[in-house]
Amino acid sequence: MKLLEERIRRDGVVKEEGVLKVGSFLNHQMDIELLDAMGAEFKRLFADAPINKILTIETSGIGIACMAARHFDNCPVVFAKKAKSINLTGDQYVTKVQSFTHGKVFDVIVEKRLIGPEDHVLLIDDFMAMGAAMNGLLDLVGSAGATVEGIGIAIEKGFQPGGDSLRQRGYRVESLAIVESMDAQTGAITFRQL
Amino acid sequence: MKLLEERIRRDGVVKEEGVLKVGSFLNHQMDIELLDAMGAEFKRLFADAPINKILTIETSGIGIACMAARHFDNCPVVFAKKAKSINLTGDQYVTKVQSFTHGKVFDVIVEKRLIGPEDHVLLIDDFMAMGAAMNGLLDLVGSAGATVEGIGIAIEKGFQPGGDSLRQRGYRVESLAIVESMDAQTGAITFRQL
Repeated sequence: MKLLEERIRRDGVVKEEGVLKVGSFLNHQMDIELLDAMGAEFKRLFADAPINKILTIETSGIGIACMAARHFDNCPVVFAKKAKSINLTGDQYVTKVQSFTHGKVFDVIVEKRLIGPEDHVLLIDDFMAMGAAMNGLLDLVGSAGATVEGIGIAIEKGFQPGGDSLRQRGYRVESLAIVESMDAQTGAITFRQL
Repeated sequence: MKLLEERIRRDGVVKEEGVLKVGSFLNHQMDIELLDAMGAEFKRLFADAPINKILTIETSGIGIACMAARHFDNCPVVFAKKAKSINLTGDQYVTKVQSFTHGKVFDVIVEKRLIGPEDHVLLIDDFMAMGAAMNGLLDLVGSAGATVEGIGIAIEKGFQPGGDSLRQRGYRVESLAIVESMDAQTGAITFRQL
């Protein structure tokens, strides 16, 4: 998506160790017009999929998912929660997600009543790198017996294996921008041709 | 706002100790049409205010804030982050917020470049009870030298002092539903007449 690539080039900041900061427009401050355009693009890419629910994970995916939902007939958005304490009443699906940013494993939950076998789910997140968060969401959807219609990502780090690994497993992964390489010295960013 | 009050009566669950669960439509699963209608109502209430930025706090305010921003000329949304580790480079405003739900104090940050004296800010959150999160946001806005145009809340607990205390301090607080009392035994909810 040209609009997003141009914005990343203009306002993204490349840091050492494969870190790309996009907090001025995507995940700390959010440019609502950009998010709306991204939502329309997700709809174009998944136009043929019978999506009736969008699932994301707190925190940075929520705004993107809500703005996208407008383009999917206002379908409901569910965000998986990073649990501080697991409520063992049996009314939640639980999985574990490795956070490379924070260097720890945390529990992620969704209430069982919010997703079930009747659901056709689009998974949305702001970034895909190793795919840890997405694998957690896939685990939750699998536990619920719901159907994964696709995975929509704002920015994929093409130099990390998450996205291509999920494609090889047969998932339909659509990333609006795929960064093939970044140079923290020069700030240069190369995108994969989509 | 009748639509929200009716939804709370229908799908909200009253728990002991003043807890109201609205996860099926507001802050775990989000009803996007409802959030859009709430955004339009915030715009109606603050139509005369020169708002150019919306500030919220992760996590539950983000979806509401993004959907509201569409009605404020797509103004940018910033969410304050609950910091796991404070980056002491001086490029962030920092405050402390007491979480009564989690029984601890955590640091909340906003990057300085995202808010400044030129900003006229609408603060948005899903709930107001003691007002702890909102006071944290007000502290951040004050540090930035920005102007608070108002405070927009989805559900205010009128039996807790946060909202009325902020009104007494001169802030313009508009809550779409104010719960005056709740009964965990019967599930009955009484709303303040607005």
